[in-house]
Amino acid sequence: MPSVDFYYDFSSTNSYFAAFMLPQICARSGAVTRWLPLHSAALFRGTGFDVMAMAPSKARYLWRDHARYAEATGLPFRRPSRFPIKTALALRCVLAVGGLDANDEARARMNLSQALFRSYWERDENIADPEVLASLIRGLKLDPDAIIARANSQEIREELRKITSDAAERGVFGVPTFFVNQEMFWGKDRLDFVEQRLKRDRRTDGLD
Amino acid sequence: MPSVDFYYDFSSTNSYFAAFMLPQICARSGAVTRWLPLHSAALFRGTGFDVMAMAPSKARYLWRDHARYAEATGLPFRRPSRFPIKTALALRCVLAVGGLDANDEARARMNLSQALFRSYWERDENIADPEVLASLIRGLKLDPDAIIARANSQEIREELRKITSDAAERGVFGVPTFFVNQEMFWGKDRLDFVEQRLKRDRRTDGLD
Repeated sequence: MPSVDFYYDFSSTNSYFAAFMLPQICARSGAVTRWLPLHSAALFRGTGFDVMAMAPSKARYLWRDHARYAEATGLPFRRPSRFPIKTALALRCVLAVGGLDANDEARARMNLSQALFRSYWERDENIADPEVLASLIRGLKLDPDAIIARANSQEIREELRKITSDAAERGVFGVPTFFVNQEMFWGKDRLDFVEQRLKRDRRTDGLD
Repeated sequence: MPSVDFYYDFSSTNSYFAAFMLPQICARSGAVTRWLPLHSAALFRGTGFDVMAMAPSKARYLWRDHARYAEATGLPFRRPSRFPIKTALALRCVLAVGGLDANDEARARMNLSQALFRSYWERDENIADPEVLASLIRGLKLDPDAIIARANSQEIREELRKITSDAAERGVFGVPTFFVNQEMFWGKDRLDFVEQRLKRDRRTDGLD
């Protein structure tokens, strides 16, 4: 089955939009989403990019642009009061979902990721706070104590580091980033290209 | 008649695409394009932005992205061998077109701008060279000596400075940038928003 690798971080506005738009595109295209939480602060340390080094006029514009995207997509995006925010524990919680079969695990990762995006970008909650994380995990009928304990294990810390460094090796320099086969697309405003690419691959593969 | 203010520079890949996509959108929407050449090097000096301070992985990706846009739009974009390039004289030539009535002058500015974009981004010519500029101007049945002499006058130098500083005051931090009324849009990938906005304004104004 065709798949899209989806690299994202909860601190990224554009990842928020992609997290809800991409699953719809994959559903329409008969593809699956591979949810790959990525520690963008660590990625930026490697590339020298500084998210806060931005002209004030550009920063102002980007918030306006996000508001227009919210209107266009119908997603209830709201500018959070805490920005940027530390996301390492939240990212590791997504990786720590376990004890389920593969399908259920993939679904649980998606559900927890979307719940985290909604918490931060719609309800302005502090997703760096373990109490907030626990409450979101509980809302998905999963065990918060077990997941947060596992999220703090060396194994899961190493998994997040590896996803992030593997992504950098593939050429990822920011999020959201999508791969269809080995073709890379950056930004929510390239989701139309992702969809076209999935369609083209289906034709090439004789699925249509 | 509704209009779109179009700020662009010949050194900007995304301005190249916009220079051919925007007139089609305006034609569909019953709007006119106001061609406003902007000296982006001067704008960036004001905002501290450095176009060359970019992670190599990002620079590589952006060329790939441009190639995909070329394919999607059918525009024969080619990566130029000279990059970046000095554009001040080319920008001033666009402003120096004169001695025509207002409609013909607007059309001449568009034609010269599109000719300059094609020269640099399709045929890899050196648009910083006055000989190349003269040949492009001649191709439009305009007088190269008169236009280049006027382009070097204090009046036209001042006009370019004023367009650039006025743009910065409106919040412009890069090109291409578009204004529909006072609403600002940045980047060729926001042209769909520009078109939607023009449509909405037509409905509001009772033109549809």
